[in-house]
Amino acid sequence: MFISLEGGEGAGKSTLLAGLRDHLVGRGIDLVQTREPGGTPLGEALRAILLDPAMRGMSAESELLMMFASRAQLVRECIAPALVAGRWVLCDRFADASYAYQGGGRGQPVERIAGLEAWACAGIAPDLTLLLDLPVADGRARAAGRGEADRIESEADAFFERVRATYRARAVAEPNRFRVLDASGTPEQVLAAAIAAVTPLLERDR
Amino acid sequence: MFISLEGGEGAGKSTLLAGLRDHLVGRGIDLVQTREPGGTPLGEALRAILLDPAMRGMSAESELLMMFASRAQLVRECIAPALVAGRWVLCDRFADASYAYQGGGRGQPVERIAGLEAWACAGIAPDLTLLLDLPVADGRARAAGRGEADRIESEADAFFERVRATYRARAVAEPNRFRVLDASGTPEQVLAAAIAAVTPLLERDR
Ligand SMILES: Nc1ncnc2c1ncn2[C@@H]1O[C@H](COP(=O)(O)OP(=O)(O)O)[C@@H](O)[C@H]1O
Ligand SMILES: Nc1ncnc2c1ncn2[C@@H]1O[C@H](COP(=O)(O)OP(=O)(O)O)[C@@H](O)[C@H]1O
Ligand SMILES: [Mg+2]
Ligand SMILES: [Mg+2]
Repeated sequence: MFISLEGGEGAGKSTLLAGLRDHLVGRGIDLVQTREPGGTPLGEALRAILLDPAMRGMSAESELLMMFASRAQLVRECIAPALVAGRWVLCDRFADASYAYQGGGRGQPVERIAGLEAWACAGIAPDLTLLLDLPVADGRARAAGRGEADRIESEADAFFERVRATYRARAVAEPNRFRVLDASGTPEQVLAAAIAAVTPLLERDR
Repeated sequence: MFISLEGGEGAGKSTLLAGLRDHLVGRGIDLVQTREPGGTPLGEALRAILLDPAMRGMSAESELLMMFASRAQLVRECIAPALVAGRWVLCDRFADASYAYQGGGRGQPVERIAGLEAWACAGIAPDLTLLLDLPVADGRARAAGRGEADRIESEADAFFERVRATYRARAVAEPNRFRVLDASGTPEQVLAAAIAAVTPLLERDR
């Protein structure tokens, strides 16, 4: 089973990931936790460039290509081997993030992103995507404590409104794969909703 | 005018570039010299990753995406502005190198590369491409003096034979854009052949 977590900055993805991992491990699941961009030596090197505030002049096209370069590597080096070995994969962001950020946020055409996804992801897609939905201002307020904003976090609110709207539209378009979680609850409430969403997978996996 | 130089490792591209630049500057041409992957801060950061021997496990898909990420940035930050300003651009490798290395060398499908080129290069293509053609063994012997081999230079001869064959096939397919130079001559002979190839452009540019 491949589960991805999506949502805007400060929505609580990393917080939920830790709780969900502990829950699944406690249920005897052998799982791999990873993230995007990153998750491999190549991906982490690309992440450092992608988030570097000094790379302000990066074109939207280059950003899209680098996100998929990281993703192509993650699929081949980490996700596919784990799934083949019967392990679960829990990933902090996956291809939906490119539709939301590079598509909705930066205006890259959806067909362009879909064209890349078709070959860069080698046919691998999440079985379940948990979308942590939160008003932009609330996410910003939560993330504010994290220190200096990276290159993407430095975007304007309008950018993050487009990101949020794109995520929500994708969840509506693929209701079987997405579960939208109200991320404005307490961490315990969000975790409980996520556990409810993954429980059917535990039964399917048996 | 946009001129690209192509050819295998050690064919003499960098050597020719310096001579050709001096010749063109001497003819009063205002020109920008650049290279791929690289040529911009983003591109140079990607180049460092692409050539790092420690990145041995890089997937062919990631390599292709990173080459185009560097190229998309170079086009938008450097080549297009220079051409708009009426300057000439002299570039050490361009999109043909992806067809030769990631396509011929690594087996990435030509349609995939053409699909990326269609939007990543924003419609910009060289007016003239000088292909320095040289037997693989001769290029290797010339490049041997350069110190430790980078990740791509470390490939087997069969890889570079496919690279060479792909370059030659592209030159045959686009005879108006390509000039194939016999790179086995002396640097002076190669430069003279290159000057003969660019002279019609100087007249067209007048
Ligand atoms: N449900 C929640 N309610 C309140 N604060 C939260 C919640 N989930 C996470 N946080 C806090 O918000 C900040 C951002 O959370 P984080 O998990 O890092 O978000 P993300 O990974 O989506 O950017 C952290 O300081 C975290 O402790
Ligand atoms: N025409 C030539 N004949 C002999 N040696 C050459 C010639 N052109 C270049 N060289 C030498 O071969 C080596 C590789 O040349 P270089 O211009 O760096 O190739 P490239 O940039 O195509 O890899 C350098 O040491 C250079 O001095
Ligand atoms: Mg996080
Ligand atoms: Mg060179």
